[in-house]
Amino acid sequence: MSSSSLGKLFTITSFGESHGRLVGSLIDGCPAGLPLSEADIQPELDRRRPGASAADTTRREADQAEILSGVFNGFTTGAPICLVIWNRDADSSQYEKIRPTPRPGQADYTASVRYGGFNDYRGGGIFSGRLTAALVMAGAVARKLLAIKNIEIIAHTVAIGGVNALPQDIQAVKAACDRNPLRCADPEAAAKMLARIEQAREEGDSLGGIIETVALNVPVGLGEPLFDTVDGELAKAVLGIPAIKGVEFGSGFSAASRYGSENNDDFIIKDGQIATATNNAGGILGGISTGMPIVLRAAVKPTPSISRNQQTVNLNDMTPADLTVLGRHDVCIVPRAVVVLEAVIAITFCDLARRAGIIPRVIA
Amino acid sequence: MSSSSLGKLFTITSFGESHGRLVGSLIDGCPAGLPLSEADIQPELDRRRPGASAADTTRREADQAEILSGVFNGFTTGAPICLVIWNRDADSSQYEKIRPTPRPGQADYTASVRYGGFNDYRGGGIFSGRLTAALVMAGAVARKLLAIKNIEIIAHTVAIGGVNALPQDIQAVKAACDRNPLRCADPEAAAKMLARIEQAREEGDSLGGIIETVALNVPVGLGEPLFDTVDGELAKAVLGIPAIKGVEFGSGFSAASRYGSENNDDFIIKDGQIATATNNAGGILGGISTGMPIVLRAAVKPTPSISRNQQTVNLNDMTPADLTVLGRHDVCIVPRAVVVLEAVIAITFCDLARRAGIIPRVIA
Amino acid sequence: MSSSSLGKLFTITSFGESHGRLVGSLIDGCPAGLPLSEADIQPELDRRRPGASAADTTRREADQAEILSGVFNGFTTGAPICLVIWNRDADSSQYEKIRPTPRPGQADYTASVRYGGFNDYRGGGIFSGRLTAALVMAGAVARKLLAIKNIEIIAHTVAIGGVNALPQDIQAVKAACDRNPLRCADPEAAAKMLARIEQAREEGDSLGGIIETVALNVPVGLGEPLFDTVDGELAKAVLGIPAIKGVEFGSGFSAASRYGSENNDDFIIKDGQIATATNNAGGILGGISTGMPIVLRAAVKPTPSISRNQQTVNLNDMTPADLTVLGRHDVCIVPRAVVVLEAVIAITFCDLARRAGIIPRVIA
Amino acid sequence: MSSSSLGKLFTITSFGESHGRLVGSLIDGCPAGLPLSEADIQPELDRRRPGASAADTTRREADQAEILSGVFNGFTTGAPICLVIWNRDADSSQYEKIRPTPRPGQADYTASVRYGGFNDYRGGGIFSGRLTAALVMAGAVARKLLAIKNIEIIAHTVAIGGVNALPQDIQAVKAACDRNPLRCADPEAAAKMLARIEQAREEGDSLGGIIETVALNVPVGLGEPLFDTVDGELAKAVLGIPAIKGVEFGSGFSAASRYGSENNDDFIIKDGQIATATNNAGGILGGISTGMPIVLRAAVKPTPSISRNQQTVNLNDMTPADLTVLGRHDVCIVPRAVVVLEAVIAITFCDLARRAGIIPRVIA
Repeated sequence: MSSSSLGKLFTITSFGESHGRLVGSLIDGCPAGLPLSEADIQPELDRRRPGASAADTTRREADQAEILSGVFNGFTTGAPICLVIWNRDADSSQYEKIRPTPRPGQADYTASVRYGGFNDYRGGGIFSGRLTAALVMAGAVARKLLAIKNIEIIAHTVAIGGVNALPQDIQAVKAACDRNPLRCADPEAAAKMLARIEQAREEGDSLGGIIETVALNVPVGLGEPLFDTVDGELAKAVLGIPAIKGVEFGSGFSAASRYGSENNDDFIIKDGQIATATNNAGGILGGISTGMPIVLRAAVKPTPSISRNQQTVNLNDMTPADLTVLGRHDVCIVPRAVVVLEAVIAITFCDLARRAGIIPRVIA
Repeated sequence: MSSSSLGKLFTITSFGESHGRLVGSLIDGCPAGLPLSEADIQPELDRRRPGASAADTTRREADQAEILSGVFNGFTTGAPICLVIWNRDADSSQYEKIRPTPRPGQADYTASVRYGGFNDYRGGGIFSGRLTAALVMAGAVARKLLAIKNIEIIAHTVAIGGVNALPQDIQAVKAACDRNPLRCADPEAAAKMLARIEQAREEGDSLGGIIETVALNVPVGLGEPLFDTVDGELAKAVLGIPAIKGVEFGSGFSAASRYGSENNDDFIIKDGQIATATNNAGGILGGISTGMPIVLRAAVKPTPSISRNQQTVNLNDMTPADLTVLGRHDVCIVPRAVVVLEAVIAITFCDLARRAGIIPRVIA
Repeated sequence: MSSSSLGKLFTITSFGESHGRLVGSLIDGCPAGLPLSEADIQPELDRRRPGASAADTTRREADQAEILSGVFNGFTTGAPICLVIWNRDADSSQYEKIRPTPRPGQADYTASVRYGGFNDYRGGGIFSGRLTAALVMAGAVARKLLAIKNIEIIAHTVAIGGVNALPQDIQAVKAACDRNPLRCADPEAAAKMLARIEQAREEGDSLGGIIETVALNVPVGLGEPLFDTVDGELAKAVLGIPAIKGVEFGSGFSAASRYGSENNDDFIIKDGQIATATNNAGGILGGISTGMPIVLRAAVKPTPSISRNQQTVNLNDMTPADLTVLGRHDVCIVPRAVVVLEAVIAITFCDLARRAGIIPRVIA
Repeated sequence: MSSSSLGKLFTITSFGESHGRLVGSLIDGCPAGLPLSEADIQPELDRRRPGASAADTTRREADQAEILSGVFNGFTTGAPICLVIWNRDADSSQYEKIRPTPRPGQADYTASVRYGGFNDYRGGGIFSGRLTAALVMAGAVARKLLAIKNIEIIAHTVAIGGVNALPQDIQAVKAACDRNPLRCADPEAAAKMLARIEQAREEGDSLGGIIETVALNVPVGLGEPLFDTVDGELAKAVLGIPAIKGVEFGSGFSAASRYGSENNDDFIIKDGQIATATNNAGGILGGISTGMPIVLRAAVKPTPSISRNQQTVNLNDMTPADLTVLGRHDVCIVPRAVVVLEAVIAITFCDLARRAGIIPRVIA
């Protein structure tokens, strides 16, 4: 019941700090018998690694996944799986200096109050985006488990800095996504996004965006109402990712301005199965999966670390202070956050599938 | 750890059905020593009761709150508080007829699969908006507890059917809210919303909208990162309310198209306290409350029950079927959902405050 | 995560008070499709009802089980099942008088401190043995679920007041148990126990004893190490029953004085299955069921309510005080506690079986 | 909610394997501001290390405690604390050979079924007593936290191989305990126990015993009825330690043969405080601490690993098989288990104290 944990039967717990010795995830409740090695995890870590695009930080981390427990002779044992990445390229030099002046948009101030000033403030400590690397490792395990049931999680960039991608076919999304450095399946929009990013970089500013995640082949019937719903569990997990400020499902906020007759999805028979003609519900009715793709969109705020001068307060003497954040930062974390969203969503579906008995305790 | 439960230390569990004998909430972890009687709960139930506006269903329920345990000599005892409403005006006649044909936009189909057809389908069973009456009762207790710490939860309608209210001062919101039948503080917008509702009613259609909730006087430092965050817990709770399809905090989805320099809230000193010049963060940084108002907006989809003809499937013989839903329904549940949002948000803050030790085990 | 709850996937929550309006249990996570009516529950309640033997209180409660939710058309729906008993024969007259003088061996004093004096002290409030009636109702549902998998829970009295029953064959235990008013399968021992009870009654005193519970046909492989073990979960549940002061499994405390070569159970093949030659492990190795009968013994302290004069303290003025507890009490609750142990153990096995996927979400 | 976890607000999760790379504990919910370094943890590990007495295994592990996260500048940060010990002296050579023949009294067979044969069987994997080293590290943190409130946890050996220690004054227990290699405060009994152990060693056999734990200065009012009681939580935690087969509180099983008038503890006034004249309740009434010492006794079965020939089954061909367990084992783990009991009991009290608000979120 740790607050750093997600999941009831498939549980992951995060630990570590941005500038400490390591970041890690502990998975408990992973079925025994899943083939697993670092080679299953490393590719996901590599996808998250900065450097793929102009949007990313210049911090370079080798980010080598390491399995410390729970795997034996190449298979999961059913025991807790400890996954870690040892930190190597951390540069803490600037943080001591700016410590008394909390950075706008960051957790510096709230963490300082919450933990009485004892929090590791270097690089944001546990609030750093760096911890999402640990989530990505756990997500790689979750995705491997879901693959047994053919469940796929695909995320892609649908907006950056006000540029919206046009809807694309899911096959196009899959094909384009990892080839395009912004992970946007609409090449024209991607080009415009890139231009915006370059401009923001020049201005020492940053940009946000919107990520859409689609879960395919989720069987009908997952979800535990009233509160452990598919949407509720996903939203809670996704909001654990730094910088996410909103979550919507299916038609989401746009449903608010529609008629019921527009927004309801008619039931139809397709390939002998019950389906819906449209998917405004985003694959969820009453908190339970409908069998249609689960569609979630998450709003990512612009990276709070910008090189422009900002106004803050010196906590030592309670005076106004100027702040210019140096260091290496992503102009726009959206392309990297795509990988993190896939991870936490995969983790959540694993837990829901375990509770529904769809993924057994032992993989035969 | 029941899936019908919310909260770790202040826990509420919902039970009952729309057309069963009752709906109820069980509160565990309520501090001892809170003065409590039905008179504290009934006004909240009355606020939720249909009939205040043209938007509401014509179903009439006396909705009498009843405390069955946990209160002794006018004070909470620290033991579980069982709150119930006995159902009286349920009309189940039409549901048997439409049972094989799941209603679009409702949980009929998913519930039928999830529960193997054993679910109580009358009026949606546990998926009915009626269960929110039980949440409102628990919310009334939570609000009383929060009031000890001066924490206030205020929700209001900011959009219906595409009509957006202009931002209002929070004092105006408080003043206007319960006087305006749509719970919208902008009178001009409210008039337009009403016109839309009347039109939708005539057309046998329905409308959605957006509700904003503001939590005032939440002290800095609530929230349990990484995952039991203020935003994560609120989102999970709010998505347990039927018809909510999206949740955002502060600038929310609009943050996605802003620059970091626009979206960051500068820290300032105000009345000797640290505050932020703007509140795009919605009172949450790193999942922890900042001391500024917590601002959440929720998208409410249009009521799925409409009188217009819809397309569905007959589950008995897997053939296409027409469906016209009779019965009494809200054209737009937004005004009533305002009260429900206040309730689940109050419940969530109570739990967060209990965990932070702000609300003690005994009210002195 | 309410502290009045047991179980992760099959969860029961207790509520109500001894002298309040009702006692009840709320079950969440019960599979849909189980045939259930009050007629399944009432017989278990009747078994617990006082009056079967000389050992029991003279308080008479009709104790009518009532199902308020979660059952529709004779089957469980998968929604929370609310089970209640309305209190009828409560006599609270004496409790006001003795309120300032906590009864030795009762929770009066600790409850008063824990709840700041706001607890319902009448008849012990939530600490009363009366709440076990609610557990027995939930246990009846659990036992019906376990019966699907042929799992049986049988408890019986093995000691009262220092008189020990000789070990009996499990068939003899089953046969004898409900016929013998003390629920002791050894008739000679039972006769001696009865004599002790009569003597204790005459002396205004009370007796304790030991109850053995055997779970038959529990498949090998239940239990979630390291801490959600079969023994850990059972012990926690059983210690929730008032008056239980010790729990042991298999050879239990007597293992402490044995050699390893005596206490280890050799593995053998029996009817083509792996079994153990002896069962000193009580059916549990490493917290996981072995397939052998699960054997738990619980120590029941003598009923603290005795008619003899006792020494206590007046909380109002912190002076020594004499106390003579009037009212109607069991001389020895062991025979009635037998039924309660069966209930909580059945509830715990249901949860473990749900987690192991042995009992599905829907009963076909 | 991982099954490898203990605690709601102060949560520890165990991981690692006996013959894997490491064993570890992850603590979440530790207050910020506690001074902590490896030097606080190592002494407890050293106390648990084998070699103190003739009873212990000859396996030698450096057992160096290492803090990987959650501590910064010498203080806990409030973030998860990852504590590990890297395994160094593991000898896995014999386990491959005996793999198909489960050792009597060990978890080999149940683990094999539970995890479909994928469990790490070397040295018992996660079921090894070695994992208790990780619990001892977490316990060292818990004890430091409890010390702030003056709460002390003291365990000692009260029986080995049928030799019972005479009751000793708690000061004598404290003084004698770590000096006596068997951690028994009665020197005469200790001498006899040692003789029994030597004899058992010569015979290739093993012995069990009983450990008593006393928690001093626990304030009145801890515990969350009905089920998260002091006794229920302690029992669950203690039964997570391998080889524990029974738990009792206060007069425990001996209460079963007493009269109520003997077993009830009269309330008295002592030093201006309410106390009880005796402590048969073991410091717990109604699941809530009374303010008196909390007294728990745990039955430890004889070490199942013995050098004598035993009967088992070859799982490969389902034939009877002989087994002689080689390797290095404790003749009697009781003296080392003393340290482990202190640890898990300290962990449990930390969690109960956190829930009661007695230990705050930040240590001032």
